[in-house]
Amino acid sequence: MVTRKEVAKLAGVSEATVSRVFNGVGPMKEGTKSKVLAAAKELNYHPNAIAQNFARRRSGNLGVVLPYTPKVHLFSTYYFSETLSGIGEEARKQEYDILLMLLSPDEPVDYARLYRSQKVDACVILGSMDTPEHRQSLMQLRDLKLPFCLVNQHFAGMDFNEIDADHVEGSYTAVRHLQERGFQNIAFLNGSSFYSNSLDRLEGYEKAIREQSVDGGMNGINKMNSREQVRIEGNYSRTSGYQAAAELWERRLSVDAIFAANDRMAIGLMQGLRERGWHAGRDYAIVGCDDSDAARLSSPSLSSIYVPFFDMGKRAAKVALEQFAAGDSGQVIQEKLPTKLVVRETSGEVSEV
Amino acid sequence: MVTRKEVAKLAGVSEATVSRVFNGVGPMKEGTKSKVLAAAKELNYHPNAIAQNFARRRSGNLGVVLPYTPKVHLFSTYYFSETLSGIGEEARKQEYDILLMLLSPDEPVDYARLYRSQKVDACVILGSMDTPEHRQSLMQLRDLKLPFCLVNQHFAGMDFNEIDADHVEGSYTAVRHLQERGFQNIAFLNGSSFYSNSLDRLEGYEKAIREQSVDGGMNGINKMNSREQVRIEGNYSRTSGYQAAAELWERRLSVDAIFAANDRMAIGLMQGLRERGWHAGRDYAIVGCDDSDAARLSSPSLSSIYVPFFDMGKRAAKVALEQFAAGDSGQVIQEKLPTKLVVRETSGEVSEV
Repeated sequence: MVTRKEVAKLAGVSEATVSRVFNGVGPMKEGTKSKVLAAAKELNYHPNAIAQNFARRRSGNLGVVLPYTPKVHLFSTYYFSETLSGIGEEARKQEYDILLMLLSPDEPVDYARLYRSQKVDACVILGSMDTPEHRQSLMQLRDLKLPFCLVNQHFAGMDFNEIDADHVEGSYTAVRHLQERGFQNIAFLNGSSFYSNSLDRLEGYEKAIREQSVDGGMNGINKMNSREQVRIEGNYSRTSGYQAAAELWERRLSVDAIFAANDRMAIGLMQGLRERGWHAGRDYAIVGCDDSDAARLSSPSLSSIYVPFFDMGKRAAKVALEQFAAGDSGQVIQEKLPTKLVVRETSGEVSEV
Repeated sequence: MVTRKEVAKLAGVSEATVSRVFNGVGPMKEGTKSKVLAAAKELNYHPNAIAQNFARRRSGNLGVVLPYTPKVHLFSTYYFSETLSGIGEEARKQEYDILLMLLSPDEPVDYARLYRSQKVDACVILGSMDTPEHRQSLMQLRDLKLPFCLVNQHFAGMDFNEIDADHVEGSYTAVRHLQERGFQNIAFLNGSSFYSNSLDRLEGYEKAIREQSVDGGMNGINKMNSREQVRIEGNYSRTSGYQAAAELWERRLSVDAIFAANDRMAIGLMQGLRERGWHAGRDYAIVGCDDSDAARLSSPSLSSIYVPFFDMGKRAAKVALEQFAAGDSGQVIQEKLPTKLVVRETSGEVSEV
């Protein structure tokens, strides 16, 4: 790699002058600047990120905010591990280190803390919830012009940077798939409505149910009664899925298929129902969300909605760091990456394992 | 929470004096110190970590060094995610943030970089290899008295802090278990010998093979020929296990059971052999290592050696931070946490799923 020293030598200036040119710091004769840029171009020199950090008083750290729950092996959950892997890939590329900030649910939400102690240049925020407290802390970040990007969460009416997945479409696709396989009474095991992705999934689910209801009414085959829909709320843990089996079993006459908002809950639920003699793929169909390793490995293998968490993390890191590099550009990035249905043994025929 | 201000007020001193007492900084009259300590005791005051960090010029960051491989979803691998979860738990407890440092295999190993930029107080190092370059960089850390602790790796003859698992005993137990089930030709799929845990597993494997050989010689039932042992080296990835299936298949007449150095390779190998019509738990037995989620979920479920990565990470973080807090105590901590055999469907009778 070409060094600053070589550029300085060719341009006939000091290394400090080369730095000042590339960092736009201090007064500078136009002639000197031209000489440096010409030398840099000739040598194909690109100032490296660490040197730039130093000159610009960067910390060189990208903050990643994560919710913390004691005894939960956080990094072993698919959503966090995949998203963090994507963030890591982008950070590595830009020569950034990652500073992890674990937020306890019982402490005040204070996203600005990391910036105040000058530890990070920008943050990617995972697991934020739509509560007044979170909204307020995020608005504070925005007002202070501290660069950040949310992952897998959006806030209606706010101009935050958000990289999300299209959970509405994903859920709609999952439920339509079950309907096309002939299932008519599709229960929904969702997560907490503090998360926008839970609300998005509910929207996709309801859209599909409504359409079936209309179709059914039209051709007279189905007559869905929305009051009969079984909806249960878990907390995205395997245990909560396992516990939901009791309620679902009580209401099994109203259920022939299940859509679960993540794979962990789906797998817990399958286990709970299996203990009652009800087998996925035989006695009922089920589709999860995430398309985690567990979906592939579980027996029977679990149909699931693939969510590109790795790409979402990578993109969010890029957005946050670009905002830092650009200063306050005023541009807000809000994207929803596409999801994809992966059909396996738990919902009829197998198209992919 | 009681504040420094309240303690200062009760003791009739300045807040700075309270800080100096708790941080042991500067000269101090015994009377003043007693007053402050009495006030602190009365109010049940514990100076919080952030304030202490400030006074002691701590960064408040615990560094975690990880090997980086492009396109590998690092945090989604069981060893890293579990270890990091354990480190996270201890860091949270001690009010530390975690600074992740991703080391590319193609860049010089320079563990001291993070400390030099004053970003971290101590480091936990994962995935270091026993190469001259790693040894030298670690010796530099030790000579500079920079606090660190290795996880799942040890260096013969060095006085580094190391929290490891008893992989020798674990592997010995796995192979003995297969022998007790009646298997006589046990192949070994190991990882790279740059990792001490690979060498440890080899030691445990060979010990069990030797003992069987002696036992067999004594009672005349078995006559193991060590030249027939099938040993294959993978790189701990699922793909490398899958690829090992070709060689193993060629030599299948010398194999009735397999011990694999991690679950990922075991699962890849099972898949590769299944495609050739050879089914785990029916045509051969297999035991993996890690006892990851994948072992429980795979079909048939995989017997495995449980390794307490979460506890190892937690303990290593504690050791590194204690060394920082104590200054150079000269004490070296080297521990091997116990492993445990978990028998599932791939190695005979099922005692736990």
